[in-house]
Amino acid sequence: MYVSLSRLEIPAARAPELVTAFQSRARLVDRAEGFIDLQVWQSDREEGEILMVSRWRDKACFTTYMRSAEHQVSHDRIDEDLRGDIKLRALEHMHTYEVVAE
Amino acid sequence: MYVSLSRLEIPAARAPELVTAFQSRARLVDRAEGFIDLQVWQSDREEGEILMVSRWRDKACFTTYMRSAEHQVSHDRIDEDLRGDIKLRALEHMHTYEVVAE
Repeated sequence: MYVSLSRLEIPAARAPELVTAFQSRARLVDRAEGFIDLQVWQSDREEGEILMVSRWRDKACFTTYMRSAEHQVSHDRIDEDLRGDIKLRALEHMHTYEVVAE
Repeated sequence: MYVSLSRLEIPAARAPELVTAFQSRARLVDRAEGFIDLQVWQSDREEGEILMVSRWRDKACFTTYMRSAEHQVSHDRIDEDLRGDIKLRALEHMHTYEVVAE
Protein backbone atom coordinates (compact mmCIF):
# COMPACT_ATOMS: atom_id res chain seq x y z
CA MET A 1 0.00 0.00 0.00
CA TYR A 2 1.23 3.49 -0.90
CA VAL A 3 0.38 6.75 0.87
CA SER A 4 0.48 10.36 -0.29
CA LEU A 5 0.39 13.02 2.41
CA SER A 6 0.05 16.71 1.54
CA ARG A 7 0.40 19.25 4.30
CA LEU A 8 -1.49 22.49 3.72
CA GLU A 9 -1.29 25.62 5.79
CA ILE A 10 -4.00 28.25 5.62
CA PRO A 11 -4.96 31.22 7.83
CA ALA A 12 -7.17 29.81 10.61
CA ALA A 13 -10.07 32.08 9.61
CA ARG A 14 -10.23 30.44 6.17
CA ALA A 15 -9.89 26.86 7.40
CA PRO A 16 -13.66 26.19 7.53
CA GLU A 17 -13.92 27.23 3.88
CA LEU A 18 -11.19 24.79 2.87
CA VAL A 19 -12.79 22.00 4.91
CA THR A 20 -16.12 22.67 3.20
CA ALA A 21 -14.39 22.55 -0.20
CA PHE A 22 -12.99 19.12 0.67
CA GLN A 23 -16.38 17.92 1.93
CA SER A 24 -17.94 18.76 -1.43
CA ARG A 25 -15.02 17.47 -3.49
CA ALA A 26 -15.62 16.19 -7.01
CA ARG A 27 -14.80 12.59 -6.02
CA LEU A 28 -13.14 12.03 -9.41
CA VAL A 29 -10.23 10.32 -7.67
CA ASP A 30 -12.56 7.67 -6.22
CA ARG A 31 -12.79 6.03 -9.63
CA ALA A 32 -9.04 6.05 -10.29
CA GLU A 33 -7.30 2.69 -10.76
CA GLY A 34 -5.79 1.50 -7.48
CA PHE A 35 -7.33 4.25 -5.34
CA ILE A 36 -8.18 3.03 -1.82
CA ASP A 37 -9.34 6.04 0.17
CA LEU A 38 -8.80 9.69 1.02
CA GLN A 39 -9.15 11.52 4.31
CA VAL A 40 -8.67 15.15 5.28
CA TRP A 41 -7.23 15.70 8.75
CA GLN A 42 -7.43 19.03 10.59
CA SER A 43 -5.06 19.67 13.48
CA ASP A 44 -6.82 20.01 16.81
CA ARG A 45 -4.18 22.51 17.92
CA GLU A 46 -3.71 24.66 14.82
CA GLU A 47 -6.92 24.96 12.87
CA GLY A 48 -5.06 26.08 9.75
CA GLU A 49 -2.93 22.94 9.55
CA ILE A 50 -4.67 20.49 7.27
CA LEU A 51 -3.39 17.21 5.89
CA MET A 52 -4.77 15.49 2.82
CA VAL A 53 -4.00 11.78 2.98
CA SER A 54 -4.72 9.38 0.12
CA ARG A 55 -3.94 5.67 0.03
CA TRP A 56 -3.21 3.66 -3.11
CA ARG A 57 -2.54 0.07 -4.12
CA ASP A 58 0.94 1.06 -5.26
CA LYS A 59 3.07 3.98 -6.38
CA ALA A 60 2.34 3.46 -10.09
CA CYS A 61 -1.41 3.98 -9.54
CA PHE A 62 -0.72 7.19 -7.64
CA THR A 63 1.63 8.68 -10.25
CA THR A 64 -0.73 7.74 -13.10
CA TYR A 65 -3.55 9.60 -11.34
CA MET A 66 -1.37 12.64 -10.63
CA ARG A 67 -0.74 12.98 -14.39
CA SER A 68 -4.41 12.52 -15.32
CA ALA A 69 -6.95 15.05 -16.56
CA GLU A 70 -9.17 14.11 -13.57
CA HIS A 71 -6.52 15.33 -11.14
CA GLN A 72 -6.21 18.61 -13.03
CA VAL A 73 -10.00 19.09 -12.99
CA SER A 74 -10.19 18.39 -9.23
CA HIS A 75 -7.39 20.81 -8.53
CA ASP A 76 -8.87 23.55 -10.73
CA ARG A 77 -12.19 23.34 -8.88
CA ILE A 78 -10.65 24.97 -5.80
CA ASP A 79 -11.57 28.62 -5.66
CA GLU A 80 -8.66 30.69 -6.95
CA ASP A 81 -8.78 33.14 -4.07
CA LEU A 82 -8.80 30.32 -1.52
CA ARG A 83 -5.98 28.62 -3.39
CA GLY A 84 -3.92 31.79 -3.10
CA ASP A 85 -4.19 31.59 0.68
CA ILE A 86 -3.05 27.99 0.90
CA LYS A 87 0.60 27.84 1.72
CA LEU A 88 2.25 24.56 0.95
CA ARG A 89 4.86 24.13 3.62
CA ALA A 90 8.24 24.15 1.95
CA LEU A 91 9.61 20.62 1.60
CA GLU A 92 6.66 19.43 3.63
CA HIS A 93 4.27 19.81 0.77
CA MET A 94 4.09 16.24 -0.33
CA HIS A 95 5.42 13.12 1.30
CA THR A 96 4.96 9.59 0.05
CA TYR A 97 5.23 6.37 2.00
CA GLU A 98 5.05 2.62 1.78
CA VAL A 99 2.90 0.99 4.44
CA VAL A 100 5.35 -1.34 6.18
CA ALA A 101 3.37 -2.56 9.19
CA GLU A 102 -0.19 -2.60 10.48
CA MET B 1 -12.57 10.07 14.06
CA TYR B 2 -9.31 11.15 15.70
CA VAL B 3 -5.78 10.60 14.39
CA SER B 4 -2.41 10.52 16.12
CA LEU B 5 0.65 10.87 13.91
CA SER B 6 4.16 10.39 15.31
CA ARG B 7 7.10 11.20 13.09
CA LEU B 8 10.25 9.24 13.88
CA GLU B 9 13.68 9.79 12.42
CA ILE B 10 16.32 7.08 12.59
CA PRO B 11 19.63 6.50 10.78
CA ALA B 12 18.76 4.77 7.48
CA ALA B 13 20.91 1.76 8.35
CA ARG B 14 18.73 1.03 11.41
CA ALA B 15 15.41 1.57 9.67
CA PRO B 16 14.88 -2.14 8.82
CA GLU B 17 15.30 -3.00 12.49
CA LEU B 18 12.66 -0.46 13.52
CA VAL B 19 10.28 -1.71 10.81
CA THR B 20 10.77 -5.28 12.05
CA ALA B 21 10.04 -4.13 15.61
CA PHE B 22 6.76 -2.61 14.45
CA GLN B 23 5.88 -5.74 12.48
CA SER B 24 6.22 -7.83 15.62
CA ARG B 25 4.53 -5.28 17.88
CA ALA B 26 2.71 -6.46 20.99
CA ARG B 27 -0.72 -5.49 19.59
CA LEU B 28 -1.85 -4.42 23.06
CA VAL B 29 -3.35 -1.26 21.55
CA ASP B 30 -5.66 -3.31 19.32
CA ARG B 31 -7.84 -4.11 22.33
CA ALA B 32 -8.02 -0.51 23.58
CA GLU B 33 -11.46 1.10 23.79
CA GLY B 34 -12.15 3.14 20.65
CA PHE B 35 -9.04 1.99 18.76
CA ILE B 36 -9.66 1.73 14.99
CA ASP B 37 -6.34 0.91 13.36
CA LEU B 38 -2.61 1.59 13.24
CA GLN B 39 -0.27 1.79 10.27
CA VAL B 40 3.45 2.43 10.00
CA TRP B 41 4.53 4.41 6.95
CA GLN B 42 8.12 4.51 5.68
CA SER B 43 9.16 7.34 3.36
CA ASP B 44 10.08 6.13 -0.13
CA ARG B 45 12.65 8.92 -0.35
CA GLU B 46 14.26 8.88 3.09
CA GLU B 47 14.35 5.39 4.51
CA GLY B 48 14.87 6.72 8.04
CA GLU B 49 11.68 8.79 8.07
CA ILE B 50 8.94 6.69 9.59
CA LEU B 51 5.44 7.70 10.62
CA MET B 52 3.28 5.85 13.08
CA VAL B 53 -0.38 6.63 12.44
CA SER B 54 -3.17 5.45 14.71
CA ARG B 55 -6.87 6.21 14.33
CA TRP B 56 -9.37 6.42 17.17
CA ARG B 57 -13.09 6.91 17.66
CA ASP B 58 -12.42 10.16 19.49
CA LYS B 59 -9.78 12.07 21.42
CA ALA B 60 -10.86 10.74 24.81
CA CYS B 61 -10.15 7.13 23.76
CA PHE B 62 -6.70 8.14 22.55
CA THR B 63 -5.72 10.02 25.71
CA THR B 64 -7.04 7.22 27.94
CA TYR B 65 -4.85 4.74 26.08
CA MET B 66 -1.80 7.00 26.25
CA ARG B 67 -2.09 7.00 30.06
CA SER B 68 -2.59 3.23 30.30
CA ALA B 69 -0.22 0.54 31.49
CA GLU B 70 -0.60 -1.17 28.08
CA HIS B 71 0.93 1.84 26.36
CA GLN B 72 3.85 1.85 28.77
CA VAL B 73 4.45 -1.87 28.19
CA SER B 74 4.35 -1.45 24.40
CA HIS B 75 6.78 1.44 24.58
CA ASP B 76 9.16 -0.39 26.92
CA ARG B 77 9.35 -3.37 24.54
CA ILE B 78 11.43 -1.33 22.09
CA ASP B 79 15.08 -2.24 22.38
CA GLU B 80 16.85 0.41 24.45
CA ASP B 81 19.74 0.77 22.04
CA LEU B 82 17.35 1.18 19.10
CA ARG B 83 15.30 3.65 21.09
CA GLY B 84 18.41 5.74 21.66
CA ASP B 85 18.83 6.08 17.91
CA ILE B 86 15.28 7.24 17.28
CA LYS B 87 15.15 10.97 17.05
CA LEU B 88 11.76 12.49 17.54
CA ARG B 89 11.71 15.49 15.29
CA ALA B 90 11.35 18.59 17.44
CA LEU B 91 7.77 19.82 17.48
CA GLU B 92 7.01 17.29 14.80
CA HIS B 93 6.98 14.45 17.26
CA MET B 94 3.29 14.06 17.68
CA HIS B 95 0.42 15.64 15.81
CA THR B 96 -3.24 14.97 16.38
CA TYR B 97 -6.11 15.56 14.00
CA GLU B 98 -9.83 15.34 13.58
CA VAL B 99 -10.92 13.66 10.35
CA VAL B 100 -13.03 16.36 8.69
CA ALA B 101 -13.70 14.91 5.23
CA GLU B 102 -13.46 11.62 3.38
